[in-house]
Amino acid sequence: MKDLPPTVTTGPLPASRRVWHCGVLHPDIRVPMREIDLHPTAGEVPVTVYDSSGPYTDPDAEITIARGLPRPRAAWTEARGDTEHYEGRHVKPEDNGFAEGTRLVPEFPVRHTPLRAQKGRAVTQMAYARAGVITPEMEFVAIRENMGRQAAKEALTRDGEGFGAEIPDVITPEFVRNEVARGRAIIPANINHPEAEPMAIGRNFLVKINANIGNSAVTSSMAEEVEKMVWATRWGADTVMDLSTGRNIHNIRDWIIRNSPVPIGTVPLYQALEKVSGVAEDLTWEVFRDTLIEQAEQGVDYFTIHAGVRLHMIPMTVDRVTGIVSRGGSIMAKWCLHHHRESFLYEHFDEICDIARAYDVSFSLGDGLRPGSIADANDQAQFAELETLGELTQIAWAKDCQVMIEGPGHVPMHKIKANMDKQLEVCGEAPFYTLGPLTTDIAPGYDHITSGIGAAMIGWFGTAMLCYVTPKEHLGLPDRDDVKTGVITYKIAAHAADLAKGHPAAQIRDDAVSRARFEFRWEDQFNLSLDPETARSMHDETLPKEAHKVAHFCSMCGPKFCSMRISHDIRAEAQKEGMEKMAEKFREGGELYLPQEDAK
Amino acid sequence: MKDLPPTVTTGPLPASRRVWHCGVLHPDIRVPMREIDLHPTAGEVPVTVYDSSGPYTDPDAEITIARGLPRPRAAWTEARGDTEHYEGRHVKPEDNGFAEGTRLVPEFPVRHTPLRAQKGRAVTQMAYARAGVITPEMEFVAIRENMGRQAAKEALTRDGEGFGAEIPDVITPEFVRNEVARGRAIIPANINHPEAEPMAIGRNFLVKINANIGNSAVTSSMAEEVEKMVWATRWGADTVMDLSTGRNIHNIRDWIIRNSPVPIGTVPLYQALEKVSGVAEDLTWEVFRDTLIEQAEQGVDYFTIHAGVRLHMIPMTVDRVTGIVSRGGSIMAKWCLHHHRESFLYEHFDEICDIARAYDVSFSLGDGLRPGSIADANDQAQFAELETLGELTQIAWAKDCQVMIEGPGHVPMHKIKANMDKQLEVCGEAPFYTLGPLTTDIAPGYDHITSGIGAAMIGWFGTAMLCYVTPKEHLGLPDRDDVKTGVITYKIAAHAADLAKGHPAAQIRDDAVSRARFEFRWEDQFNLSLDPETARSMHDETLPKEAHKVAHFCSMCGPKFCSMRISHDIRAEAQKEGMEKMAEKFREGGELYLPQEDAK
Repeated sequence: MKDLPPTVTTGPLPASRRVWHCGVLHPDIRVPMREIDLHPTAGEVPVTVYDSSGPYTDPDAEITIARGLPRPRAAWTEARGDTEHYEGRHVKPEDNGFAEGTRLVPEFPVRHTPLRAQKGRAVTQMAYARAGVITPEMEFVAIRENMGRQAAKEALTRDGEGFGAEIPDVITPEFVRNEVARGRAIIPANINHPEAEPMAIGRNFLVKINANIGNSAVTSSMAEEVEKMVWATRWGADTVMDLSTGRNIHNIRDWIIRNSPVPIGTVPLYQALEKVSGVAEDLTWEVFRDTLIEQAEQGVDYFTIHAGVRLHMIPMTVDRVTGIVSRGGSIMAKWCLHHHRESFLYEHFDEICDIARAYDVSFSLGDGLRPGSIADANDQAQFAELETLGELTQIAWAKDCQVMIEGPGHVPMHKIKANMDKQLEVCGEAPFYTLGPLTTDIAPGYDHITSGIGAAMIGWFGTAMLCYVTPKEHLGLPDRDDVKTGVITYKIAAHAADLAKGHPAAQIRDDAVSRARFEFRWEDQFNLSLDPETARSMHDETLPKEAHKVAHFCSMCGPKFCSMRISHDIRAEAQKEGMEKMAEKFREGGELYLPQEDAK
Repeated sequence: MKDLPPTVTTGPLPASRRVWHCGVLHPDIRVPMREIDLHPTAGEVPVTVYDSSGPYTDPDAEITIARGLPRPRAAWTEARGDTEHYEGRHVKPEDNGFAEGTRLVPEFPVRHTPLRAQKGRAVTQMAYARAGVITPEMEFVAIRENMGRQAAKEALTRDGEGFGAEIPDVITPEFVRNEVARGRAIIPANINHPEAEPMAIGRNFLVKINANIGNSAVTSSMAEEVEKMVWATRWGADTVMDLSTGRNIHNIRDWIIRNSPVPIGTVPLYQALEKVSGVAEDLTWEVFRDTLIEQAEQGVDYFTIHAGVRLHMIPMTVDRVTGIVSRGGSIMAKWCLHHHRESFLYEHFDEICDIARAYDVSFSLGDGLRPGSIADANDQAQFAELETLGELTQIAWAKDCQVMIEGPGHVPMHKIKANMDKQLEVCGEAPFYTLGPLTTDIAPGYDHITSGIGAAMIGWFGTAMLCYVTPKEHLGLPDRDDVKTGVITYKIAAHAADLAKGHPAAQIRDDAVSRARFEFRWEDQFNLSLDPETARSMHDETLPKEAHKVAHFCSMCGPKFCSMRISHDIRAEAQKEGMEKMAEKFREGGELYLPQEDAK
């Protein structure tokens, strides 16, 4: 097989170390963070940042893609004593699109017997939370979210507009439990994906981002997709969705999950459709159900389920400028129409919940009728579906299933907040998970930017996770570079949102960069930035010498016009002269120009 | 001279023609627009878009950089009979930083005798507007801003939130006159820059963008800067600021202005500082005044004047994280401090207005104390200066001078609107002109994006012109690629703002792209986009064949998963079956799942 074994990017980011914080309630948990060392002249402690990259950035970790990552969560699940191992489903030819011979991606070399809940038990984080249990996953999340916040607590000043978010100064395990219990946050953590490091998606936590990967019938291989997953998490993706639609879906997914330190999401409908050779009308509940079991056993952490597309909503889309643009939505709409009945997703949602409950697969209730253009934003079809998603949320919650809600799409700025408000209102504060939204349609090739604007805004308003959009959106399948650009853009949007919400620790990193900038610590500026490589290479294009890394200017202004350098002179002079006193004298000197009305 | 003659990028954008609309009040004016032809299968008229690119995109125009562009506005100024030709100032060695021999960029080959107002006359667009005169410039702007709006008027539905903007359905010349008269818009149009095509900057017009170019002591040449100017306008820059700070400032600027179809702005302080060898304390009113005359005679359309930096404000910046980050602000602060007095800009602002009034140089009142980090946003220093800018606006208006106000900078999302509100309040609705703002400090290398988010938002709230930020911000001098990325990003921000404000014609282009997308008119999608080259090349990376340009799918989803294709099937089925009737039956079929509260 030509693309085996896959090679992935490893090694630490510049000046960075992976460090661990241990649990208190659960002393065996080790929560990873990244510490960025600063130049000794800074006289500052390292800056701690959230780290989604898994063992790949740890030089001491031994990475063998064909074996997969270590499985620390296996023991936690085991200890709860409410699951059972069983033989599980066998891989069928249709799971891989009937790929054969050299076209078949080999199975992942290690097979783990799947786990499921013992009969009648719910093994979801929500079930535990509601029972008052603080799981290791919850404590892990609490420690992870605090990210040095406790140490910096004294210095923190809260500032921001949260639009009803209730972010505490310090996240406690009990706070996490409570948020999960009331459905305001989820911890996507399939019991069959013990390789993943727990993380939370909710309005009162850091805003998260998702990166989509996956092959299509037209292009890309397993090795490329595994590397895209590692690459995306390296730059900060909090979850990854495998949206493969070509052949080998089952086997590619196995390679991805076994090596993924972050939760993996899928749209099971895509694989189900492959199993019926792409003929939407031929989909059945049985094929779909079999696919859910298949993916739950593999360890998929969340499923997008387009159960909100109901028959009576389809006519609402017919006069749209861009019809139905969600793949899942269009497939289900076609099915409904052909069979003249409600979808099997809607009719069997109860049973879907039973499956999710037995593996702790979270739901991402899909917005199959999201707008695909500015012209279609916030229309009747979109909001009708959202109301249905609210109803389905209640059903899932009644079964202790974790739920988030997908959102648009393409929305001009003045219509963004209405989306968030309506979602909060009709979905009981279940986390919102939006794609962008794109704020204009006129810039294909730059839709990471058109959507980054909308993503930052809706993140501020309360969206818990932002699904990235890459520059290739509407044009082609993203490659590795596109994935990175998409991730960095969305890290910017998420962080801008955290700042604006008044997240208590968010500004620590901004301030560290700003101090480095003011003190001409160029290396620190690069190392503290979201993409040190790019920052450094842009600087070095014009000033490549090492000596320039301590220069008190850059090529933008040159030495004479460097405002920061001049500011230092001013500060020095101020200290010498007692500026305040001097300035006071001038303040009293009166105004040379009076406001126009006084002058008349 | 090795870099002569400069070569610039010419030729039309794909499927585009430069067309002209004539005036009614002034039948001799020819207002350029760009028409983008669509594929015949669209059955649609060409889409008309605003065109800032000048003759360079007109294949019939003869471009000779060493001669400069035609000077259509010369006759309009002449006809007003209130100006006089005079010999003008002679170029001095210090104007070019004492560059000599091969290091001296040659003078522009053609010298035009400068014009100034006859004694006692005001030749500003504001003076004419207040006198009730609709100038050719005003009618030009009215036609330019409408951009096919009249033709589409029937179909327009107003939608948006303007935060007090008053954008009419159709822009009339009288509306332009009134906006200019009350200071709510400016038409930067130095009588010595007759090559420029008039444009307006104001809250009730399309949001504009500025691109900064200019050499520094460290890098770049005249030829590069001329090409950057042409290149920036090709992609949509509405004005260009020449921020050169190296040698040859005078001569480079001449080459730029004589070839620029858009207004050129400068910060005269930069050149003045060069004249005193970079020693801020040595600056004098006489050197500065001489520089203003020099640049006014050359045809600079707007001056950034940092007259708002007052002595008593300087101590307010001492405890900032990043001090003073405006070059002009830091230079003036240093001067004030050294001399223990108010700046010559503030003390002589009256005389500065007299010069501006004699050439119609607009003011861009500089925000010398803008915040340079999230930590410093909206602080006392920033807003104290803004209040002073409001006072200076009244003084300038009393002299019939056109004014806009510069704004920040670095501002987290939740503090952006306060900037706009305060500016409107204290500056009498003079147009706001902001740099970004950047919404986080943690992404050097991506500050076009961190700032594009802030720019879109503040544009929506009412900012009239957005100064671009390129990926190189904080790292180095932008090259040609950075200029393009900056311009496209800011065209996105400006357009997203126009959409959200409810500009009546803004959505025409979005809708055209969306229809093309839905109908798989790939060529039209590329041609209608802000950057056709990039869109096409991204598409062609995976599907290069010509046949794929009419394919009913792309590499993202492949044919089976193309939601748009499925939507067409749905639409076809709907027409066949009478969907509305069918769906009605199902609507009445009742709910399978009831909202949770009802189900209990």
